[in-house]
Amino acid sequence: MIKEQVPNIHTGIFSSYVDSDVVVFGIPYDGTASYRPGARFGPQKIRQEIDGIETYSPYINKDLCDCKICDMGDMPLFFGNTQTMLDNINSEIQHILKDDKKTVVLGGEHLISLPIIEPYIKKYPNLHVIHFDAHADLRNEFLGERLSHATVMRRIFEKLNGTLWQFGIRSGTREEFAFADENTRINKFDLNGIKEAVCTIGSAPVYVTLDIDVLDPSIMPGTGTPEAGGVTFNELIAGILPLSELNIVGADIVELSPHYDPSGVSTSVACKLLRELLLIIS
Amino acid sequence: MIKEQVPNIHTGIFSSYVDSDVVVFGIPYDGTASYRPGARFGPQKIRQEIDGIETYSPYINKDLCDCKICDMGDMPLFFGNTQTMLDNINSEIQHILKDDKKTVVLGGEHLISLPIIEPYIKKYPNLHVIHFDAHADLRNEFLGERLSHATVMRRIFEKLNGTLWQFGIRSGTREEFAFADENTRINKFDLNGIKEAVCTIGSAPVYVTLDIDVLDPSIMPGTGTPEAGGVTFNELIAGILPLSELNIVGADIVELSPHYDPSGVSTSVACKLLRELLLIIS
Amino acid sequence: MIKEQVPNIHTGIFSSYVDSDVVVFGIPYDGTASYRPGARFGPQKIRQEIDGIETYSPYINKDLCDCKICDMGDMPLFFGNTQTMLDNINSEIQHILKDDKKTVVLGGEHLISLPIIEPYIKKYPNLHVIHFDAHADLRNEFLGERLSHATVMRRIFEKLNGTLWQFGIRSGTREEFAFADENTRINKFDLNGIKEAVCTIGSAPVYVTLDIDVLDPSIMPGTGTPEAGGVTFNELIAGILPLSELNIVGADIVELSPHYDPSGVSTSVACKLLRELLLIIS
Amino acid sequence: MIKEQVPNIHTGIFSSYVDSDVVVFGIPYDGTASYRPGARFGPQKIRQEIDGIETYSPYINKDLCDCKICDMGDMPLFFGNTQTMLDNINSEIQHILKDDKKTVVLGGEHLISLPIIEPYIKKYPNLHVIHFDAHADLRNEFLGERLSHATVMRRIFEKLNGTLWQFGIRSGTREEFAFADENTRINKFDLNGIKEAVCTIGSAPVYVTLDIDVLDPSIMPGTGTPEAGGVTFNELIAGILPLSELNIVGADIVELSPHYDPSGVSTSVACKLLRELLLIIS
Amino acid sequence: MIKEQVPNIHTGIFSSYVDSDVVVFGIPYDGTASYRPGARFGPQKIRQEIDGIETYSPYINKDLCDCKICDMGDMPLFFGNTQTMLDNINSEIQHILKDDKKTVVLGGEHLISLPIIEPYIKKYPNLHVIHFDAHADLRNEFLGERLSHATVMRRIFEKLNGTLWQFGIRSGTREEFAFADENTRINKFDLNGIKEAVCTIGSAPVYVTLDIDVLDPSIMPGTGTPEAGGVTFNELIAGILPLSELNIVGADIVELSPHYDPSGVSTSVACKLLRELLLIIS
Amino acid sequence: MIKEQVPNIHTGIFSSYVDSDVVVFGIPYDGTASYRPGARFGPQKIRQEIDGIETYSPYINKDLCDCKICDMGDMPLFFGNTQTMLDNINSEIQHILKDDKKTVVLGGEHLISLPIIEPYIKKYPNLHVIHFDAHADLRNEFLGERLSHATVMRRIFEKLNGTLWQFGIRSGTREEFAFADENTRINKFDLNGIKEAVCTIGSAPVYVTLDIDVLDPSIMPGTGTPEAGGVTFNELIAGILPLSELNIVGADIVELSPHYDPSGVSTSVACKLLRELLLIIS
Repeated sequence: MIKEQVPNIHTGIFSSYVDSDVVVFGIPYDGTASYRPGARFGPQKIRQEIDGIETYSPYINKDLCDCKICDMGDMPLFFGNTQTMLDNINSEIQHILKDDKKTVVLGGEHLISLPIIEPYIKKYPNLHVIHFDAHADLRNEFLGERLSHATVMRRIFEKLNGTLWQFGIRSGTREEFAFADENTRINKFDLNGIKEAVCTIGSAPVYVTLDIDVLDPSIMPGTGTPEAGGVTFNELIAGILPLSELNIVGADIVELSPHYDPSGVSTSVACKLLRELLLIIS
Repeated sequence: MIKEQVPNIHTGIFSSYVDSDVVVFGIPYDGTASYRPGARFGPQKIRQEIDGIETYSPYINKDLCDCKICDMGDMPLFFGNTQTMLDNINSEIQHILKDDKKTVVLGGEHLISLPIIEPYIKKYPNLHVIHFDAHADLRNEFLGERLSHATVMRRIFEKLNGTLWQFGIRSGTREEFAFADENTRINKFDLNGIKEAVCTIGSAPVYVTLDIDVLDPSIMPGTGTPEAGGVTFNELIAGILPLSELNIVGADIVELSPHYDPSGVSTSVACKLLRELLLIIS
Repeated sequence: MIKEQVPNIHTGIFSSYVDSDVVVFGIPYDGTASYRPGARFGPQKIRQEIDGIETYSPYINKDLCDCKICDMGDMPLFFGNTQTMLDNINSEIQHILKDDKKTVVLGGEHLISLPIIEPYIKKYPNLHVIHFDAHADLRNEFLGERLSHATVMRRIFEKLNGTLWQFGIRSGTREEFAFADENTRINKFDLNGIKEAVCTIGSAPVYVTLDIDVLDPSIMPGTGTPEAGGVTFNELIAGILPLSELNIVGADIVELSPHYDPSGVSTSVACKLLRELLLIIS
Repeated sequence: MIKEQVPNIHTGIFSSYVDSDVVVFGIPYDGTASYRPGARFGPQKIRQEIDGIETYSPYINKDLCDCKICDMGDMPLFFGNTQTMLDNINSEIQHILKDDKKTVVLGGEHLISLPIIEPYIKKYPNLHVIHFDAHADLRNEFLGERLSHATVMRRIFEKLNGTLWQFGIRSGTREEFAFADENTRINKFDLNGIKEAVCTIGSAPVYVTLDIDVLDPSIMPGTGTPEAGGVTFNELIAGILPLSELNIVGADIVELSPHYDPSGVSTSVACKLLRELLLIIS
Repeated sequence: MIKEQVPNIHTGIFSSYVDSDVVVFGIPYDGTASYRPGARFGPQKIRQEIDGIETYSPYINKDLCDCKICDMGDMPLFFGNTQTMLDNINSEIQHILKDDKKTVVLGGEHLISLPIIEPYIKKYPNLHVIHFDAHADLRNEFLGERLSHATVMRRIFEKLNGTLWQFGIRSGTREEFAFADENTRINKFDLNGIKEAVCTIGSAPVYVTLDIDVLDPSIMPGTGTPEAGGVTFNELIAGILPLSELNIVGADIVELSPHYDPSGVSTSVACKLLRELLLIIS
Repeated sequence: MIKEQVPNIHTGIFSSYVDSDVVVFGIPYDGTASYRPGARFGPQKIRQEIDGIETYSPYINKDLCDCKICDMGDMPLFFGNTQTMLDNINSEIQHILKDDKKTVVLGGEHLISLPIIEPYIKKYPNLHVIHFDAHADLRNEFLGERLSHATVMRRIFEKLNGTLWQFGIRSGTREEFAFADENTRINKFDLNGIKEAVCTIGSAPVYVTLDIDVLDPSIMPGTGTPEAGGVTFNELIAGILPLSELNIVGADIVELSPHYDPSGVSTSVACKLLRELLLIIS
């Protein structure tokens, strides 16, 4: 249901699907957003703004133009029926993994990471998940629902054989923090444990899920549930760069909500993070 | 699940539930919004701004302070599970109708009118529905769903014994307009047929559902799907005033989406329409 | 305390004080605003945007460049002490009237019209006042205060020997409308009585006070208390043009609140109204 | 330099270039904007929002899905060198006209109409131009430049053998209005002369240039130079519909500046006008 | 004049007045704001958004649900007459102090701290005041007034027997800084002296007044007078946490001006600060 | 073509041209902006907001009121013809340098620094340039043009005999970074090399060009091309203060684009930077 887009030389994302190593596509879903909806507008806005940034990264001295990345556009919307939407995402990912490509998905809300990661676990049973977020997302249920942006990491944890590494977490119930203390490798408030994680994981396959609200709202106002006290952009870059030593097999960037970002800064930050992730994963 | 609010003398809405003739409450639901979500913020914003308008209406020379109206706050949110939400609304309305009070509901998206009107039809089998809207809302299904803001008047039509009167409709598929021509009393573009409707309906019970996008987006930008070519505020007032001759038993105002209204004008318009509706219905 | 500004050829307002027939200055006061403050930013914003409009008016076939108008900048702010502010305005106006010039003041909130009109009445005991507004502004007191934007026309009425002509009024308490019916020449909702007013007034001196919320909020969102159901720009122009037959001795334009006007349209409308008023008065 | 886009079934614009009768593309140029730039963002924003409106028009009972229209994306930007940009547009249009297709261009500022219309005049020496605008655009030069959004209709007039019909004009210098009175068929303020124009033109080829600021800024705030006193959307539709009797060979819609339209209404209006124009021209 | 609000379980603020230890209420006053008004909208906006944050704080491992806090709504507005407003606040505070409860007030502009602190000094003659702010607020008079947001700490200093501790100050006249150097314990630019203050104060009663513009405008744009160079959210939290060792008897959070915060981040920051203050004070 | 403005005591900028040591004026040009135009609105907005900040700086303990600074307003706009504009700037600067005054120019886009610095090099052949920016601006050409905001430092480098010191650079092509490594003294990402620069330069004349996007977009969203990962305000102040030991002969502040700064924070930051620069240069 996703479709190859017209190549755009200015973005550095211009391979055909067949030639590509990495497949980018959007999932404009925000159906369980309880506070401020709008993550559905994230993928479109990233595509609209991405040629405003350079394809070359001075952080890691690489250029997107040297990579083989394909933009497959956005999945169509399915609101009202959560399960149908999850199933569609799952099968789309399976299809791409069968072609031995990596996916980098643009959200949409965080719940989409669940149907993305499920087929990854099937393919890589020892998969680790690295999770950047302001929120623990470890509730067992939220407003009576088990499938929600607020429960997604709990659901993923339940299916995961590898470790769930959490970074930047600064919001949750008392119960979520207690659960994390016992079950996940949680780093409260900051990203200090990244290097230890990289050492421990070694060559095991890794999926990276980046909820952009891990950033401080000063630099990322355009998100559904901003939480003050987050990391700066430079801290996040410093946390992401060591990941280049890992075997990253997939990633997502979720929860950009551009309607809450009248200056456009949040989208430009998301574009830059996407560039760094693509360069690391390629 | 709705709760009596603290009376506010400035709004003219200060009766207790027991004393009231008319019960106002909000349903902050926008779960099937396909284009721009945000109608969930409507009720809260109306409550926040309503003391910015006078309680006295020079249009009909009546004052809210002379009416017995109770504000019962908002229903809690249920996203992700459409059916649960519809059931909750339905039973809330039943409860109030049993107490022989009228309801004026603040949306939220238009789908909420379905579970509101169902118990009304049970109580008033010969109920007529007067529908102000830019959109026909007569699709049989939308993006694969039968329960949606775009199908709501079709679902209501299917349960209705009385007539569905549609005013201001200027957007829909070819099929919707064809369906309307055969099945409903549709007034394309304007409200010219109001007086004929009033004559025909006579003393039968009437429910009024007002999708505020019937107004031109020049005066009502704060709505999910603005459609140019709508009626002016004065035209809408002129269309609403004759309804005072009818036996109106309930009403709703839906689709105010205040995040798309940076100047605040849309909310002040919605407040004024609420005042006129309350004065007519009281 | 006001100071001659640097002449700006693009605005058509470039006379020196000495050479001028008409003196424009701003009073950036909004200290009694009860709902949404911000009219203090009106004069500055008008000055900033006024060279975006032409100096020539096709409505009355005249050009500002052919008039003798001086811009004297803004009065300094005095918040906290209403009476001092009123006294300062009063003496500023007296000074200019002594020099036999006309004033066109940019508000600021409507209360400023009181200390402007007082010296006018001293100079022209048979002064008429033409009042365009959405609100009657005829309360005797408001939130316990007798000096307020909501009482200003009542205070002016009390000092006036001539007639108070009110146009476009569509909001007020029941008592205000009753007071108007007995004491002023009120035109509810529209400007239809303008020509009758012009005939009746004849050659008597006239002061025009234009609260821009007389316009519908679709074209004038940038005002403190928007009231739907106002006149269109073309209707207001049609109401203003006949005033050129009168002996207008002064005018003001009040209640532009540009912070509630993110698109900038309200300011451009105010600039255009200012141009027409200046051309009529010159 | 323009490129065939991925077909989008929801927009009704999904033909290939080869199959198409009408070619749509954008020219995101605003290099001579003197007041508020930003028309460069128009084409992208229209493409982003166009699936928010229906493909079926109840005004003329036709559906875009029944037409053969191709979207060729946007021309690359050329700022700083006006002449190069004009030459590029001219040759792009020539190329399409050679293939016997019609063009509907999305601006960008109004100056782009000059290099579009030049090749049209070569192909159709008796071309008429119908011009909807708030501004006469008939200056001989503006800020020292002969090529500008403010001079574009003067330059086009100089090359035109047919008649220049102007509608809705309400802003200009005294000289522009005098020039128009002698040389063009100007309709000040409104569109009343449309039917006479249609009669007079008969079967001659016609190009339609629609500066969206002909609309009142209440419904079209998102434009560089808003001018109060414009036509309503319904008046513009009523003015456009009679054009279906003409032999329209090309059209453009210019001056949408979406950054000045925080509510998004202006873009939705532009999309609807584009739909009507495409249906009339197909 | 303040009224007990409907309890809201989601906010953790749901005690009755009788049961409560801490009383929260708002004072929506901004009458002396000289630059950008709008702090009057602060309390309402905080109430509207506060259930967007968790009741549990990972910073101090406590939950609002375990505290006894009552929300008493907002005081009615009194603009135009500063002294009446100050007197009303003073007597409201006296009343609550007599009931042996603590107050946490939501501003409104900073001047409100004066009538709040006066009765506190009466009850606790050895009261210390801890003052977080970008501005010294130590002018003797401002624009001719002695009662103003710019003079408030000078007035409080004059009545205080204990020490005035100032943190984060980075803006003022040369005279204000000189006055502070001689009379208060001023910490320019940062909060480094907090621990010394805590040691020195020991068990004496303390009132905390938090002007949120002490934060850098990157994280707190929504305030009347933003001053670059402020502390980060994490620095402020680190400055507030040690206060839990003190005997805090009251607090206020002032100068949130949500109309200058289109993304909503400022309000969410204010809500989080309110949570931490309430947890520390309870 | 620039004109002496009315002195404004509140801004501390109130000398006459004749008496002044430092001349401030604006160049509202953004004609080569490729991404988001609007820097043309910078000078006007700075003038509008500058009395919102104090004239006294606690950072360097000096007051603007003790300096001799003149505001000469803005140069008129010239869009469409880049070369004419550059020539006009050049001759304006020459004129002021001949009067032995220093200039501090408010942009406008960065290209304006080229015609400003050219006459400086003529007067001071051994001029050094200190360049704060997120972008290298060292392209040889951009979109086919040699004169552009993206090439400006390359053009300046070509004329410079002294050294080009670059600070905060974090965006560019691979080629630009390679060019900088060989030819300029580039400090990637931060300002750490400032002190070394000050030592090396000694008493040679220095021109400072400050592109405000060197700041992180969290504190400076209002700029055409925001680049995450910039310096904080305090870091920039710490980088600017050591410059007071240098012989600074001129400076500019460019690329403020206030339309992308809905909260107004960016302009207040620019005003504060202007104050510090003026105090250092005076």
